[in-house]
Amino acid sequence: MTYCVGLLVREGLVMMADTRTNAGVDNISTYRKLRVVEAGPDRVITVCSAGSLSVTQNALSRLHAGILMPDSGEIETLARVPTIFRAAQVVGQALQTAKKAIDEVVKDDSIGTDATLLLGGARDGQRPRLFLIYGAGNFIECGPDTPYLQIGETKYGKPVLDRMIHFETPMAEAVKVGLISFSATMRSNLAVGLPIDLVTVRAGAPKIEMAHRIEPEDEYYAELNDRWSNALRAAAAAIPLPQYASEPDPALFLD
Amino acid sequence: MTYCVGLLVREGLVMMADTRTNAGVDNISTYRKLRVVEAGPDRVITVCSAGSLSVTQNALSRLHAGILMPDSGEIETLARVPTIFRAAQVVGQALQTAKKAIDEVVKDDSIGTDATLLLGGARDGQRPRLFLIYGAGNFIECGPDTPYLQIGETKYGKPVLDRMIHFETPMAEAVKVGLISFSATMRSNLAVGLPIDLVTVRAGAPKIEMAHRIEPEDEYYAELNDRWSNALRAAAAAIPLPQYASEPDPALFLD
Repeated sequence: MTYCVGLLVREGLVMMADTRTNAGVDNISTYRKLRVVEAGPDRVITVCSAGSLSVTQNALSRLHAGILMPDSGEIETLARVPTIFRAAQVVGQALQTAKKAIDEVVKDDSIGTDATLLLGGARDGQRPRLFLIYGAGNFIECGPDTPYLQIGETKYGKPVLDRMIHFETPMAEAVKVGLISFSATMRSNLAVGLPIDLVTVRAGAPKIEMAHRIEPEDEYYAELNDRWSNALRAAAAAIPLPQYASEPDPALFLD
Repeated sequence: MTYCVGLLVREGLVMMADTRTNAGVDNISTYRKLRVVEAGPDRVITVCSAGSLSVTQNALSRLHAGILMPDSGEIETLARVPTIFRAAQVVGQALQTAKKAIDEVVKDDSIGTDATLLLGGARDGQRPRLFLIYGAGNFIECGPDTPYLQIGETKYGKPVLDRMIHFETPMAEAVKVGLISFSATMRSNLAVGLPIDLVTVRAGAPKIEMAHRIEPEDEYYAELNDRWSNALRAAAAAIPLPQYASEPDPALFLD
């Protein structure tokens, strides 16, 4: 399993991914799922991956040689794409091609080749953008109404994002809430685990502002975990107990 | 979609279910999913249902006439089962029979006939018990290590249960935490909705102690919702911001 989140707020872009992969619960490894796939003087492009590791690794490996794009008939590379939108098209084409190639040799329905990517990046003079790319190569873009996208084990960590992330949330706050979302996910799904990789890109500066790996001994993350657990318990304790009178509706009883 | 929770703490049993059903987002209705399927002087048995409504309604309708049990060769009814364990076997047999009958006529894979039930109840002189029954009729029992079971849209509301429900949690507190779990679920999935049906059974007294339907205008639930939202925001705000230095690992960059 996997959990990756991209957050796109006014101040910039945050990309986060866990590093646990598993093929069954008896085969658990650590793999990097967050990568900077292109970094030049005028651009930075990052990708988080979820799903079949053989498909996503294959897709990313194709990027260096460039991707033959059906619409232009040319081989295009991330180093030369004019926009992050075009980068999403190129990576989508790479993912689709990788998945098709692997589907052909696998041909056994019981082997899953589903894969999804988050692509986030910026070019100079353009605002940062964030996309969720599906296995078929199509994608959706993150907008200010719901300024985040998730892939992998998305549900446990979604309520906290829904309640606390807005487009005007400062970037440091977005990192913090993102980590709370990881904390909630790891509490409930063992297949998502530390370390967490994290990069930020500030709007107006198309480069990695901060890149950090949160290891199990990370003091800030441990404190965040504890504070969040304690605050949740205190919050629940502070809510008065229900005082419902018993009012059984006849429809409660099966006829 | 559906969300149902059963909580089995030392003080007793709590059963909760939402009432929203949907066949696509353009066909949403209110159906009762929590029922008292048997109530006699010495017993109470409740069921929550999730999944195919045609399967679960069919299964429950079979209970009145009694179920032919393959192991005893006899027609058995919930009014006469000696234990709640036997009740789970009878209801499991009813569910399996209903699902098989409907699978035979449907025969189209695109129509889902999956269904699950929570069965919770008590007999005099016996502790309350709680089971999760699968479509094949097999089931698992709730134990004190994880004193709750969920069916339907389980993930959004699970973290709060994992953090706050223990076997020693008082029953009123369990109702409150259960409602927080519903609040988290309804915040993130529109297909789970009010009213919420709720019944409690106190250990040592095999009857409905409290039955209540929480309607949209319920003051306590609205207050719980507000307090929980505000407390989460305050809890997140109280956590210091991360101060990570940028330490990019060379492996971050795709070669």
